[in-house]
Amino acid sequence: MSIEEKFPRGFQAAGITCGIKESGKLDLAFFVSNRPATAAGVFTRNRIVGAPVIVSRERVPAANTRAVVINSGNSNACTGERGISDARQMTALAAELIGAHEENVLVCSTGVIGRFLPLDKIESGIREAAASLGKDSQHLQLAAQSMMTTDTVEKIVTRTCEIEGITVTLTGVCKGAAMIAPNMATMLALIMTDALLPHDAATEMLRTAVNLSFNNITVEGHTSTSDTVLLLANGAAGVSCGSAHSLERFQSTLNEVCMELAKKIIRDAEGAAHFVTVNVQGLPRDADARQIAKAVCESPLVKTAITGNDPNWGRIVSAAGYAGVPFQEQDVSLILNGVVIYEAGRPAAFDEVALSQSMKSGTVTIDLQFRLGKAQISFWTCDLTAEYVRLNADYTT
Amino acid sequence: MSIEEKFPRGFQAAGITCGIKESGKLDLAFFVSNRPATAAGVFTRNRIVGAPVIVSRERVPAANTRAVVINSGNSNACTGERGISDARQMTALAAELIGAHEENVLVCSTGVIGRFLPLDKIESGIREAAASLGKDSQHLQLAAQSMMTTDTVEKIVTRTCEIEGITVTLTGVCKGAAMIAPNMATMLALIMTDALLPHDAATEMLRTAVNLSFNNITVEGHTSTSDTVLLLANGAAGVSCGSAHSLERFQSTLNEVCMELAKKIIRDAEGAAHFVTVNVQGLPRDADARQIAKAVCESPLVKTAITGNDPNWGRIVSAAGYAGVPFQEQDVSLILNGVVIYEAGRPAAFDEVALSQSMKSGTVTIDLQFRLGKAQISFWTCDLTAEYVRLNADYTT
Repeated sequence: MSIEEKFPRGFQAAGITCGIKESGKLDLAFFVSNRPATAAGVFTRNRIVGAPVIVSRERVPAANTRAVVINSGNSNACTGERGISDARQMTALAAELIGAHEENVLVCSTGVIGRFLPLDKIESGIREAAASLGKDSQHLQLAAQSMMTTDTVEKIVTRTCEIEGITVTLTGVCKGAAMIAPNMATMLALIMTDALLPHDAATEMLRTAVNLSFNNITVEGHTSTSDTVLLLANGAAGVSCGSAHSLERFQSTLNEVCMELAKKIIRDAEGAAHFVTVNVQGLPRDADARQIAKAVCESPLVKTAITGNDPNWGRIVSAAGYAGVPFQEQDVSLILNGVVIYEAGRPAAFDEVALSQSMKSGTVTIDLQFRLGKAQISFWTCDLTAEYVRLNADYTT
Repeated sequence: MSIEEKFPRGFQAAGITCGIKESGKLDLAFFVSNRPATAAGVFTRNRIVGAPVIVSRERVPAANTRAVVINSGNSNACTGERGISDARQMTALAAELIGAHEENVLVCSTGVIGRFLPLDKIESGIREAAASLGKDSQHLQLAAQSMMTTDTVEKIVTRTCEIEGITVTLTGVCKGAAMIAPNMATMLALIMTDALLPHDAATEMLRTAVNLSFNNITVEGHTSTSDTVLLLANGAAGVSCGSAHSLERFQSTLNEVCMELAKKIIRDAEGAAHFVTVNVQGLPRDADARQIAKAVCESPLVKTAITGNDPNWGRIVSAAGYAGVPFQEQDVSLILNGVVIYEAGRPAAFDEVALSQSMKSGTVTIDLQFRLGKAQISFWTCDLTAEYVRLNADYTT
């Protein structure tokens, strides 16, 4: 069930301008739970990680998390020991202002790599944010906007589900549009819920949801140094997801929130003109399906064919062929926007003009069907446009 | 030693128009050795391969190869059994015309995927080519031009070396510029030499040279269905590379020919405005260095930063970080066009304006230095421009 954007019970936030961005746009968000929350996190797999990732990673999973402080405009990555100390100081001040311990506050930063944070501005900002917390939807929007770098819209999803007769709310916010100069933009997401989750289950549940959502989107395949997804469950709804049935229902709603947020990132991807879904099915293992979907989604030749509304299917089939998964030509069929164009290793006759026309709608669905097993995956991506190149190239120091 | 483009002794070729390309440009090349040659081949690792790859792969290594027939404009890939039969027929006719066996002729095709060859046109073309063979450099040029798809210049390299007092010649031709709609262009190369090579050493020598050259270039990371590198050694110089010393000298010249051809592909890459060299050194294994170089070269964010002459080094370091090779931040330093900008995990102060200025020369060298071992690699790539996107998107069926 979809409802209007709002906080789960017991959460509030603020979004303010502290002066990191030269543009004067919102650049500091502060999310607070009025009681200790179970927290789980999933982080970038890049070997080079930002200082906030190092600090937050140490602090989850946890049972007593109270807040998340996020700045945009500077990722505090590749900044050595001083960066880690700066990130810790952000959490210490935030904790002090809400009467919590430093360890109970998480931190994220997104923006340009390799510059030290303007800590004085951030400290004033955190004070201002703590003084202006609110629990209405306007505060939610401001906080979501304060996470943005090159995003053009804030990204918020609220869903509810019934757990033992009580309605619990899940609200997720995220940012991410691509990685645009001068920023190494990043994917950051925070999902808040007033359900109570078993401490030991939270990380696994978040991981499951991320594997169906944020791990299945790609703009250009460049993994950032700061990618972070956090889940805070504060139990303010007065119900615990204890039973298998409750957990399952909560998981399904969590999946939905994460998938919806992930698709919002793709829809807002820089320069994108097409929203592309790639469904791969019929492989022996999930990892095989993922590998093929990723290769297709990240091929600049597949992307540019879509940009030009060109059903140039050889590019799709050959991208599958170099993904590193063993198969024979006759094992694969390709369906593009519902039209069979390659069947069990042989080209099928189709109306190229009509198919190109259907791609002009801006929505493209690629189905790659194998007959080698039962594993399947859905992946989402966008096209690659001259506008994307301009946005990423036209900054010069 | 570099000399003007010419055939090694005992080779001749023709390049003609047979009508595959609507543009009426040259589209059929025929390379013939007047005596049996040792042949070796290295082929695409794509799971989906063109019919000519299937046919030629069966016929090397060999000691009695006489010719290679190549068409451009149609890759004869994803064409099932009929495609394989068509490829065989091309070699049968070519063999008949030069008095050889079908098995002694190799075949390559490059161009659009998924269409059947116009076999009648190709058969007339092979007859015409066989009737117009010549051994002067003009014939070499015409043949090299007949392999082109979206290439803007033909690519020929001639080198000589002394083997036991006798000068042997190595001449390589190749094509490849990117993969431009409507063609799934491919990298094809043929290296001819009048040296005599031990039958069993030829494949290994070719593989060594390819690993230093064609395997170290990338335009957009899309492995084609038709990539092929062939070596023909006919011994017409009257000297055999029998001794270890001769083999070493020949190998070094072969490496040079292949590297020069590979760089010619990058210099002619579609829409490219920068020639980029990525040197990765100090890793435990060659494979580690290769993986990092490839990740950096294929990152659209690194490429577009270079397009904009932007020393946005966070993109380079983070691309290395997601390559899948284990290392710590403090293990890596980055030098861009000779300027140290990241040293053992810490940002170094540098003049951004001067560095950006040096990138405007069109030549960019990225040195990534690790301190984890002795393995190193050099990789070559180009930038990603709006022109590349336009070239690949603006074709519609």
